[in-house]
Amino acid sequence: MNADMKKVPKIPSIRRLANYLHLLKKMREDSKEHVSTTLLAKETHLEPIVVRKDLEITGISGQPGVGYRVDHLIAAIEKFIGWNNTSEAFIVGAGSLGRALLGYKGFESHGLKVLAAFDCDPSKTDTEIHGVPVFEMEKLPNLAARLNIRMAILCVPEKSAQSCADMLVSAGIKGIWNFSPVNLKVPAGVVVQNEDLASSLAVLSFKLSKNIQRAAEEAAANGVL
Amino acid sequence: MNADMKKVPKIPSIRRLANYLHLLKKMREDSKEHVSTTLLAKETHLEPIVVRKDLEITGISGQPGVGYRVDHLIAAIEKFIGWNNTSEAFIVGAGSLGRALLGYKGFESHGLKVLAAFDCDPSKTDTEIHGVPVFEMEKLPNLAARLNIRMAILCVPEKSAQSCADMLVSAGIKGIWNFSPVNLKVPAGVVVQNEDLASSLAVLSFKLSKNIQRAAEEAAANGVL
Repeated sequence: MNADMKKVPKIPSIRRLANYLHLLKKMREDSKEHVSTTLLAKETHLEPIVVRKDLEITGISGQPGVGYRVDHLIAAIEKFIGWNNTSEAFIVGAGSLGRALLGYKGFESHGLKVLAAFDCDPSKTDTEIHGVPVFEMEKLPNLAARLNIRMAILCVPEKSAQSCADMLVSAGIKGIWNFSPVNLKVPAGVVVQNEDLASSLAVLSFKLSKNIQRAAEEAAANGVL
Repeated sequence: MNADMKKVPKIPSIRRLANYLHLLKKMREDSKEHVSTTLLAKETHLEPIVVRKDLEITGISGQPGVGYRVDHLIAAIEKFIGWNNTSEAFIVGAGSLGRALLGYKGFESHGLKVLAAFDCDPSKTDTEIHGVPVFEMEKLPNLAARLNIRMAILCVPEKSAQSCADMLVSAGIKGIWNFSPVNLKVPAGVVVQNEDLASSLAVLSFKLSKNIQRAAEEAAANGVL
């Protein structure tokens, strides 16, 4: 622990920075040169003070009355997140979700390039999906080492998720984007980002059922029902 | 505002409850009758006090020394989240992500049944994907009303996301699971749950780049480099 620990940003800030980045890139396409926190706040439905504090952690400072230069702000956020160099990744598991992610156009604009996919099902290997080659799983460690790959996207069924993660860690992978509904055990120094669709669905279901319940109660209180 | 507002649970609690539910269902399959917070904490790598507080908000209480009955705990969590009745939903957009979600086996075990998909591309309509019929977009309002559908999963490209959301709201949809990278504007009473893959990727990239940087600094400090 040292004094720098205080500067570690909160995860929601990083998620919001990714959102600002997305908007800023659209502004750059529209040849906009400057942007204010007020405008970013309006577009993202956030309070201006939240936007200002998020941007501050990247180290950039705006000009009073002018705001930020769009291209400077894009560069600052990309550098902060670690997106100024394209990251290369493997996809592990070429089932329906893996295939969908291979076809997802959004990754490259966020600095992620998927170089290859791997699957243990021989009927899926030695093919290409959306231009990306699919290899048998056994080839992963050698290719990861040769290409110096640090990131993998895990889309395998639950029962093989932990063994695949172990194999990825042995192969030198340092970041796992986990789409399998499993709490992976990994050693210190390896980062796991869980993309848990079931838990998102839980949040939506919960809010929806509370909303419908509230509407019914209000209707009852107003004598509508 | 009333006293009940204090009881509103935090989103991370609901996400964790979805995780416990997943584990509990596996335990039930393995014919386990009782479970302790300690065991749930161990399986999820959380502190027991976190698990205990999460379970408390569902209103269930365990027995000292015995813990919870697995079936009671499943019922309590499902009721709390609003999963005790299966929700029915439409998928809007039958592109690569929409198709993947149609093939995703995990939803039904979480009380979500996708009844139909909709797309504005005529080459995709009047077909079936993974047994789910795909209709032209114009048919959505009528079908939503007839089947009393409240939830929609939005997987359309960015440029049509807001107009699709407007159409869903007019059709009486109350919950939108949004996979498009757009900040949707919806009226009060409609819930949007954003599933933003780009922002998750930002979090992973950030942690990974910080980890790699730290490892390099430690190696330098130890005279390895």
